[in-house]
Amino acid sequence: MQVDEVKLRWGDAVTESDIEANLRPEHRAILIVHNETSTGVTTDLSAVRWAIDRTGFDPLLLVDVVSALGSIDFRMDEWRVDVALTGTQKGLMLPPGGAVLCVGPRALDAAEKNRTPRYFYDWRPVIRDMQQGFFPYTPPTLLLFGLREAIRMLLEEGLDNVLARHARLAQATREAVQAWGLRMLAADPARASDSLTAVVVDAIDSGAVVKVAAERLNLALGVGLGQLRGRVFRIGHLGALNELEVLATLAGTELALRYSGHPIELGVGVAAAERFLAGCE
Amino acid sequence: MQVDEVKLRWGDAVTESDIEANLRPEHRAILIVHNETSTGVTTDLSAVRWAIDRTGFDPLLLVDVVSALGSIDFRMDEWRVDVALTGTQKGLMLPPGGAVLCVGPRALDAAEKNRTPRYFYDWRPVIRDMQQGFFPYTPPTLLLFGLREAIRMLLEEGLDNVLARHARLAQATREAVQAWGLRMLAADPARASDSLTAVVVDAIDSGAVVKVAAERLNLALGVGLGQLRGRVFRIGHLGALNELEVLATLAGTELALRYSGHPIELGVGVAAAERFLAGCE
Amino acid sequence: MQVDEVKLRWGDAVTESDIEANLRPEHRAILIVHNETSTGVTTDLSAVRWAIDRTGFDPLLLVDVVSALGSIDFRMDEWRVDVALTGTQKGLMLPPGGAVLCVGPRALDAAEKNRTPRYFYDWRPVIRDMQQGFFPYTPPTLLLFGLREAIRMLLEEGLDNVLARHARLAQATREAVQAWGLRMLAADPARASDSLTAVVVDAIDSGAVVKVAAERLNLALGVGLGQLRGRVFRIGHLGALNELEVLATLAGTELALRYSGHPIELGVGVAAAERFLAGCE
Amino acid sequence: MQVDEVKLRWGDAVTESDIEANLRPEHRAILIVHNETSTGVTTDLSAVRWAIDRTGFDPLLLVDVVSALGSIDFRMDEWRVDVALTGTQKGLMLPPGGAVLCVGPRALDAAEKNRTPRYFYDWRPVIRDMQQGFFPYTPPTLLLFGLREAIRMLLEEGLDNVLARHARLAQATREAVQAWGLRMLAADPARASDSLTAVVVDAIDSGAVVKVAAERLNLALGVGLGQLRGRVFRIGHLGALNELEVLATLAGTELALRYSGHPIELGVGVAAAERFLAGCE
Repeated sequence: MQVDEVKLRWGDAVTESDIEANLRPEHRAILIVHNETSTGVTTDLSAVRWAIDRTGFDPLLLVDVVSALGSIDFRMDEWRVDVALTGTQKGLMLPPGGAVLCVGPRALDAAEKNRTPRYFYDWRPVIRDMQQGFFPYTPPTLLLFGLREAIRMLLEEGLDNVLARHARLAQATREAVQAWGLRMLAADPARASDSLTAVVVDAIDSGAVVKVAAERLNLALGVGLGQLRGRVFRIGHLGALNELEVLATLAGTELALRYSGHPIELGVGVAAAERFLAGCE
Repeated sequence: MQVDEVKLRWGDAVTESDIEANLRPEHRAILIVHNETSTGVTTDLSAVRWAIDRTGFDPLLLVDVVSALGSIDFRMDEWRVDVALTGTQKGLMLPPGGAVLCVGPRALDAAEKNRTPRYFYDWRPVIRDMQQGFFPYTPPTLLLFGLREAIRMLLEEGLDNVLARHARLAQATREAVQAWGLRMLAADPARASDSLTAVVVDAIDSGAVVKVAAERLNLALGVGLGQLRGRVFRIGHLGALNELEVLATLAGTELALRYSGHPIELGVGVAAAERFLAGCE
Repeated sequence: MQVDEVKLRWGDAVTESDIEANLRPEHRAILIVHNETSTGVTTDLSAVRWAIDRTGFDPLLLVDVVSALGSIDFRMDEWRVDVALTGTQKGLMLPPGGAVLCVGPRALDAAEKNRTPRYFYDWRPVIRDMQQGFFPYTPPTLLLFGLREAIRMLLEEGLDNVLARHARLAQATREAVQAWGLRMLAADPARASDSLTAVVVDAIDSGAVVKVAAERLNLALGVGLGQLRGRVFRIGHLGALNELEVLATLAGTELALRYSGHPIELGVGVAAAERFLAGCE
Repeated sequence: MQVDEVKLRWGDAVTESDIEANLRPEHRAILIVHNETSTGVTTDLSAVRWAIDRTGFDPLLLVDVVSALGSIDFRMDEWRVDVALTGTQKGLMLPPGGAVLCVGPRALDAAEKNRTPRYFYDWRPVIRDMQQGFFPYTPPTLLLFGLREAIRMLLEEGLDNVLARHARLAQATREAVQAWGLRMLAADPARASDSLTAVVVDAIDSGAVVKVAAERLNLALGVGLGQLRGRVFRIGHLGALNELEVLATLAGTELALRYSGHPIELGVGVAAAERFLAGCE
């Protein structure tokens, strides 16, 4: 099996032209990340779908929605996604420990026809047993009960309201970053993620900001991953979240920047975020 | 039994001269509130003790430490307090539902000698049974287990550190109030409480601030009680609390003031608090 | 205020003739225990009501339903009970810590007219505040949330089913006691309690049975109280309870009796209980 | 890769002669189940080790200890086990959802040398990251905290005491089965499992016993798996367990057998178990 990777600059999103330039008739599937946790960039999946259609080819569309589902709009049917994969610990607001797969009929069919030996990656025994109310092995029962409750909570708030809340809180975060005079890693503001924001710091080691935030403020920021190590820290704003939690995070980030020796005027980020939130009303 | 009340302006604390002017030989006990929850004022109990001693009289000293214990320095032995009363739901960081009485030997003795009929207010059956490991009635077991853990937590952090933390977070709150251009109800800054701050608002109904904070931000501020209704809102900062929670509360209060129509520059309170906290390090 | 007590032998219930022989026109209230926790005897409240009516007097009827409510039939309206008092930790299946009062219009009226000074025992401030959704003091919030859920659970099962379940499980317990060759303290089998069973042991100290059950089997039996100390142990079967819990308790009691040196054939009690339960189906 | 299976009758354990008759020099690993959950049979691993050694060959020894660890004696070092695999939901007393691998140096070395492509089954990235305090992916944090506590609990009781407790409670269960006149699936009593007992029923469908136990008694027995479907039900007695829980389970099983139409004298199993437990003291 040949795998062709589309190389992107970290901070860029897959675009329609990436699809059109790279997709070839022999490609049987496209694997794409909806929201990139290391860079804070969200792919425009409807544009991806449109670009695929325009090529006239028909690969399976497999999407990693781990840090998107429940916080960023995702439409499995409308965008004809064949497989979507997520975890329990992000927008589904549960402890980590579970993976959730949504699989459409074309993917089911492809898996049925495929002759590759597989064991762990074979969803057929699970599907077969679940049709009779069973699992082929001991399931993580607590996560399943939690998942039922999480879905009730999302529906009770209304999925549109949930997505609007995340869009609002993400924009408040971006206003703060701008007020700090820092820049987001997301090259195209229109593709900046509504579930996390990756902030570039040049003056100091971004790892020091994360460390001091944890040690002195009990605040969990994310470190820069891979080639972004030391250059980026990340602010998560997905899942169960409200205005006060975001403002606390921004206030703590300001203090952590100051404690790490980054020149910053304390309070300007929170003020910008508050002004944005007050204007939303 | 005659009860003489020392009338105070709401916002004032009992002073040494109040004691000296009012205490008379026939007074058998002084009942005093360590920290007044409705006004955010802390009595200087060591000065009270000193003033009592100077009168040469020796009444029992009964102290309500409900919103003080665990957040504000209290020294039962050094200040020769005979009875201290608190609840579980404040500095002891537990759910509400329990009252805790600390009783010294003079109070035990007075209760023994007193012939007034009493039932609910009689601690003797409780003391008698507890000496054998029992309660005279069904005790609130969960609160007792919780109390043991709460005390462990306080000792693990170190009581001095706990008190220093509350002093620091309270001062951060007061810096914000000042930056907002508002005043505290506590007339004497030196007596402003480290467990809550009562803020006076003249321009608008303080109840509206509390209401909008709860409804739009899920933030629980306290209303003005009694004669302070509509004029004061209260910010609690006692018990389990850290920097980020205080900053979130201040940010939410700014938004709630703005939402209620109070002219306020968003962010200035949080900025002042952050500057103070950064300077503490 | 004069209080006339009706002396009963421990293990007897108040009867209609007790009422008729003792009630006098000057009695303003009758205070009666629905289910006596120390003896395992249930008063026939409908007979009490009928006996009161037959005297032609009309005292307030105050009932302690602590160990009855939710496990034994109680009809406040039908029996014209003026005040019923219970706790959270029995049939309401919650942790201990709360008391619940149900007060009817005649009792409210009597409290209003009464001029006795009172503070803690005054329900008027509570009622007044609760009409506006408040408490006059900090309420035990967790118990209130729990109470709402407990009531939902009772209604979901259906109160009639709940009572039938307790009657069935209590009878299973009594079958075991009989099979052990022991007798119940309740003199009249018809008045034996459906929420607990007090068992008389003559051969050995009943306290030893309770002690060994706790230490070796982690089983909580109740000791004999007051004059029953050493002569009686008690088996609770109220609140959240099912067949297996009762059978485990009976099995453990058999072992504890044997461990304490009481001559007993192991298994006979559980067997009798099982036969009864199997026959119920 | 060639896999040779040693065919056993369901209910038999692997024996030394199975090893000696089947092990060949080209076998690179033996995979063996310590305790077979479907049959209630425990392999004598020390005998297996001894038999392997006697052959003079040196395959890796891989052991599934899922339903054994924490309830049945297992000695990784003494028996020179190279890989042991368990889950969190059995003897470790946690919710399901986690797998635990213990890997010795020979297995680590074999994995390093092996050139087979692998991804999910590759423990090397996990080991590498964990040496720096990390996971290569989001770990199930709650299970890890729970695991720490579970291990503390096992050590607090003392592992020898834990194993003795399971041996005692398992024997009590077996006494009951014998008293019922039923037989265990485990052909050799010496190999009957201390963590679960599989009971053969000929007169009726064993699935009916399991069903009625769940529906009428809220008791979870295990069904017969595979070829044992309808012929066997299983009683679990592993993990957090005490005398009363076992006795309740046995009492409930008696009732469920009776409810399913199996001729059984109620109480005889519990009585036998109680006699055994009383004799242990």
